[in-house]
Amino acid sequence: MKPIDFYFDFSSPYGYFSSEKIEDTAHKYGRTVNWRPYLMGVVMKITERKPLVQIPMVNDYSARDLSRTARYENIPFAVPSKFPIATVAACRAYYWLLQQDRDTAIRLAHELFRAYFEHDRLISDPQVVEQIAVGIGVDSVKIAHALQNDQVKLLVREATDDAVSKNIFGSPFFVVDGEPFWGHDRIAQLDAWLKTGGW
Amino acid sequence: MKPIDFYFDFSSPYGYFSSEKIEDTAHKYGRTVNWRPYLMGVVMKITERKPLVQIPMVNDYSARDLSRTARYENIPFAVPSKFPIATVAACRAYYWLLQQDRDTAIRLAHELFRAYFEHDRLISDPQVVEQIAVGIGVDSVKIAHALQNDQVKLLVREATDDAVSKNIFGSPFFVVDGEPFWGHDRIAQLDAWLKTGGW
Repeated sequence: MKPIDFYFDFSSPYGYFSSEKIEDTAHKYGRTVNWRPYLMGVVMKITERKPLVQIPMVNDYSARDLSRTARYENIPFAVPSKFPIATVAACRAYYWLLQQDRDTAIRLAHELFRAYFEHDRLISDPQVVEQIAVGIGVDSVKIAHALQNDQVKLLVREATDDAVSKNIFGSPFFVVDGEPFWGHDRIAQLDAWLKTGGW
Repeated sequence: MKPIDFYFDFSSPYGYFSSEKIEDTAHKYGRTVNWRPYLMGVVMKITERKPLVQIPMVNDYSARDLSRTARYENIPFAVPSKFPIATVAACRAYYWLLQQDRDTAIRLAHELFRAYFEHDRLISDPQVVEQIAVGIGVDSVKIAHALQNDQVKLLVREATDDAVSKNIFGSPFFVVDGEPFWGHDRIAQLDAWLKTGGW
């Protein structure tokens, strides 16, 4: 069976919520998850959208909905003091690790998300990304070099280009056997799709 | 117990979906629903947003998600041939009827939504709104006059101003005991909120 493609941006709070849930959903149906962080800023420009927190009226609701949803789903969460942030360093670290060890790369993705959305750490800062990687056993010299490596930079560009070419325009965004699901809200339908094979 | 405020625009497909579900949810907890159609175009300008179907990349997904969600929830639905549309005539008919008979006004709201989203009838056309009203027993002369009545026009403006003043910016948008919920996706949380009194 094909893996579930899970596209997200590391600065997306609903992407973070999904990162805490999607592995359980996949596991129920014997699926794996293909974690695909990308730079959603590129797509936001194409689609001429703004983050919800930058829209009048919507911004206050948005913070409230995030906190309420986190409590509803028992996910630790605190609204970050800075939002949104650049996530290129986080993406580079992930794709570099993925080349070596998939499990460690996914563990790093979890740690990066939690650092930002639970502990308000600025994962836009490459040094913070390095510290988090070192915290799960990655070599400090290697990660520092990787974040400046041209081949690693290219991996992130390719991942973003690939997402755009597949009409991925949000975070989280899932593809299950060719069927697209946009938003953390759609995990219930995604679950039903896996269970029934679609409708 | 206070009613659930249900704000929507008659040209909102997710508003239509919620209109088919919210009465059942309210009924479970002994609540009534205060149907509050308004002209969301006013708020879309303030918040500088576009309908999803007018956004590149998002548009194709949006049509797919609507049809899929309708089937998932067993709601009759066909993507309208014209979207979005002006809903001022529909709003006027609703608020005029509401002054006389709440149950008939809600029945009209259902019929207007179904006419547009199930049978592709252009409810932007005042004559179509009149036909639908007549179909549920409303006097044809009275409804024709009501749609041009200045006091009725004012009711719609006041309803829209009232929504904006309460930071309502979407459709559907619910308020339960002061707590706001945006989107058809949030009915599950709204249900849980009614059940538990909040968290």
